[in-house]
Amino acid sequence: MTEETEGQPPSDDAYALNAATVDAILAAVEVGARERLIEYLAHMHPADVADLLEQIEEPRRVRLVELWGPDLNGDVLTELEEGVRDTVLATLTPKQLSEAVQELDTDDVVYLVEDLDEPQQEAVLDALDDADRVAVEQSLTYPEYTAGRLMQREMVTAPVHWTVGDVIDYMRASDDLPEQFYDIIIVDPAMHPVGEVRLGKVMAHPRSVKLDTLMEQDFRTIPVDQRQEDVAYAFNQYHMIQAPVVNADGRLVGIVTIDDAMDVLEDEAEEDMKLLAGVGDEEISDSTMAIVQRRFPWLLVNLITAIIASIVISLFSSTIEAIVALAVLMPIVASMGGNAATQTLTVAVRALATRDLTGSNAMRIVRRELVAGTINGAAFAVIMAVVGIIWFGNPMLGVVLAIAMVGNLAVAGLAGILVPIGLDRAGADPALASGTFVTTVTDVVGFLLFLGLASALLL
Amino acid sequence: MTEETEGQPPSDDAYALNAATVDAILAAVEVGARERLIEYLAHMHPADVADLLEQIEEPRRVRLVELWGPDLNGDVLTELEEGVRDTVLATLTPKQLSEAVQELDTDDVVYLVEDLDEPQQEAVLDALDDADRVAVEQSLTYPEYTAGRLMQREMVTAPVHWTVGDVIDYMRASDDLPEQFYDIIIVDPAMHPVGEVRLGKVMAHPRSVKLDTLMEQDFRTIPVDQRQEDVAYAFNQYHMIQAPVVNADGRLVGIVTIDDAMDVLEDEAEEDMKLLAGVGDEEISDSTMAIVQRRFPWLLVNLITAIIASIVISLFSSTIEAIVALAVLMPIVASMGGNAATQTLTVAVRALATRDLTGSNAMRIVRRELVAGTINGAAFAVIMAVVGIIWFGNPMLGVVLAIAMVGNLAVAGLAGILVPIGLDRAGADPALASGTFVTTVTDVVGFLLFLGLASALLL
Repeated sequence: MTEETEGQPPSDDAYALNAATVDAILAAVEVGARERLIEYLAHMHPADVADLLEQIEEPRRVRLVELWGPDLNGDVLTELEEGVRDTVLATLTPKQLSEAVQELDTDDVVYLVEDLDEPQQEAVLDALDDADRVAVEQSLTYPEYTAGRLMQREMVTAPVHWTVGDVIDYMRASDDLPEQFYDIIIVDPAMHPVGEVRLGKVMAHPRSVKLDTLMEQDFRTIPVDQRQEDVAYAFNQYHMIQAPVVNADGRLVGIVTIDDAMDVLEDEAEEDMKLLAGVGDEEISDSTMAIVQRRFPWLLVNLITAIIASIVISLFSSTIEAIVALAVLMPIVASMGGNAATQTLTVAVRALATRDLTGSNAMRIVRRELVAGTINGAAFAVIMAVVGIIWFGNPMLGVVLAIAMVGNLAVAGLAGILVPIGLDRAGADPALASGTFVTTVTDVVGFLLFLGLASALLL
Repeated sequence: MTEETEGQPPSDDAYALNAATVDAILAAVEVGARERLIEYLAHMHPADVADLLEQIEEPRRVRLVELWGPDLNGDVLTELEEGVRDTVLATLTPKQLSEAVQELDTDDVVYLVEDLDEPQQEAVLDALDDADRVAVEQSLTYPEYTAGRLMQREMVTAPVHWTVGDVIDYMRASDDLPEQFYDIIIVDPAMHPVGEVRLGKVMAHPRSVKLDTLMEQDFRTIPVDQRQEDVAYAFNQYHMIQAPVVNADGRLVGIVTIDDAMDVLEDEAEEDMKLLAGVGDEEISDSTMAIVQRRFPWLLVNLITAIIASIVISLFSSTIEAIVALAVLMPIVASMGGNAATQTLTVAVRALATRDLTGSNAMRIVRRELVAGTINGAAFAVIMAVVGIIWFGNPMLGVVLAIAMVGNLAVAGLAGILVPIGLDRAGADPALASGTFVTTVTDVVGFLLFLGLASALLL
């Protein structure tokens, strides 16, 4: 399918769904042209078909799946977002569903069935052959979001004493090799992995060479109960392609491959981004009512914190009544504090996720944030003092504004770094609602400092 | 190095640098114990050594590099963040630098030299053998952030007519195979790639089988001028491990591997997250003055927009003077609008990055955001009306608050989706400062609606 990429100018939409194709497919669905639909979809990658299903409206989605059903490619199911997947699964007949899952690797089946209801889960499991069924059920006994759920059972192992010739003969004789694999795992007689050999190395050596002389130096195993974000981190940090997963006894139970790690890495980055912005795990394909319900609790938390800030303001009602310029200027102090805090917070959350902010440098970074906040605070204090004096002709108002600005930006730096570190130490996700915590701090401190100083110095 | 992961409880710090190791290394640096330092670092992955260098203070970093210099592993250089890398490169002698880069793949050398000054670049290029030097210089002629910069020249190709036996014999005879490769690229006599064969497939078939019968069905080439974020998207979307890069004539010029694509994917997600929060490309390892300077311009933009909002407030000074409750309540209206807009914005920016928001569904999503904003606005309007009436005992104030809330949350939904889509259509990064744009809109609209209505209805 090189025509999709070749000779095309580099653009943001190099791989986005082609609007003409989408229209042609929807037209085929409209008139019930089953053969035409199958023909179109056969030429698309399952991930693109999944995107298409996500981007069209639900009634059309259902109609497309009904029409395509008997020929549906199981890989499409594993590429779908959860909400859309539920609709598609509900549309398929049990027979269509079992046909679709038979070709999948065990890790993909696990991913698919872990969110299903009991009866649907049964239907999928019944469709598998016995070995796969046992493997999937075994994986489901491991906690969610761990290596045990991420791994696949399909892998190639070889005993320590084998030679290059042995493994080549074994592979030529085997009719059950995994679709994709990159390393051969060397195991001892008790199935403990002792090393791995890259396929390229095997092919580059004569048949007589012993495999254990070709093993990679940097060999890492993954405990089956390791959290998936740690697995993804290891793949990214150490440039791994696949890794053996071991149980508590150190025995080989499966492998994780880089495509699964890459998915987790993407998901974790996306989750942090959304948590920082106060949105849950919503997707662009969610329905209107779904997003209304998902966003409501976050907005409610924001309302409560906004009311706290308002209560602070209300303490100074008489001051504001006397000097209305304070009401005009106070949002500036709060806004600058909130912005500075969000800057620090975002860098900190990201650095915690990439393990670049650790016990070794935390104290130094906290000090740096405090100093940086104070310096930028001083710069903006000067600017704001000038603005205050020019706008309202009151030098003392300028002084109040300047002091409040320095104070709030220093506090912003501190809160922006201490809140995520604190959440992390407490075992929570550092991104979780920390934006709301931190801006509440800067709002309250900003209003208190500015209006308090004004009461003391201007009245 | 399985001891690092085995038998350890799953924790957030499964792979973070071990504090005891860091202390031991710093102690060795302190007393100038070169042999001990080399011994420690030899047991660490280059990516972990890079993290260590990033996390310690600059004087110690310089001292460590001076001590380690002659034995420095070139891979560490490619793992470092830019600011830290500059210090390390400046500390190395030209001889040490050239020794360090000789073992690197061409893509890593390109990554390293593209940001160097002319004389330093010359020093590194001089250290390479002629073929590598030509390859690196060739890569540098492609624009930054394109496939041409990302690709490596080390690859394995085979002519269409070869058999499994031919390619095995070739690989056994070759002493210059790449460190890592996963697919063999099949080329025609003019070096146009026509397909790829996975190593696992080659090994699973007898010597007489022709390679072109084993080619993958889903074969994609990448144009050398394709933007790196599109390359990363393709790897993630299509679960690719490596991909051939072709020039304008369709001839093979290199390959991109998944580890490079994974780096780009991470970088792009991080960039969006930081742009949304109004921070540039700062790193946790940056110095205090560096972050002061990087954050200042973003804060200045925020100040200007905050002043615009203040000007709106100042238009209603006399209203506020008459009803000071308005000054107390107005930040709530603005804050709720800002929060709702940020929710929509974040989901939209993310969906644009993952190509889930396209021309096919944009109109529907815009409508959904407007409706969802209005519904949540109505819910909070009721809540706020009650709060306003109870707190200030003024039913009409409750009505004003309610109307302003509905209006601002509807505008928040619209602005949150239209601003990133607009930036994207204009060819800009949708994350770029869109947070500031959008909250300016909700601040201005919030204050205008609330204070304007209050002037009309309460005075």
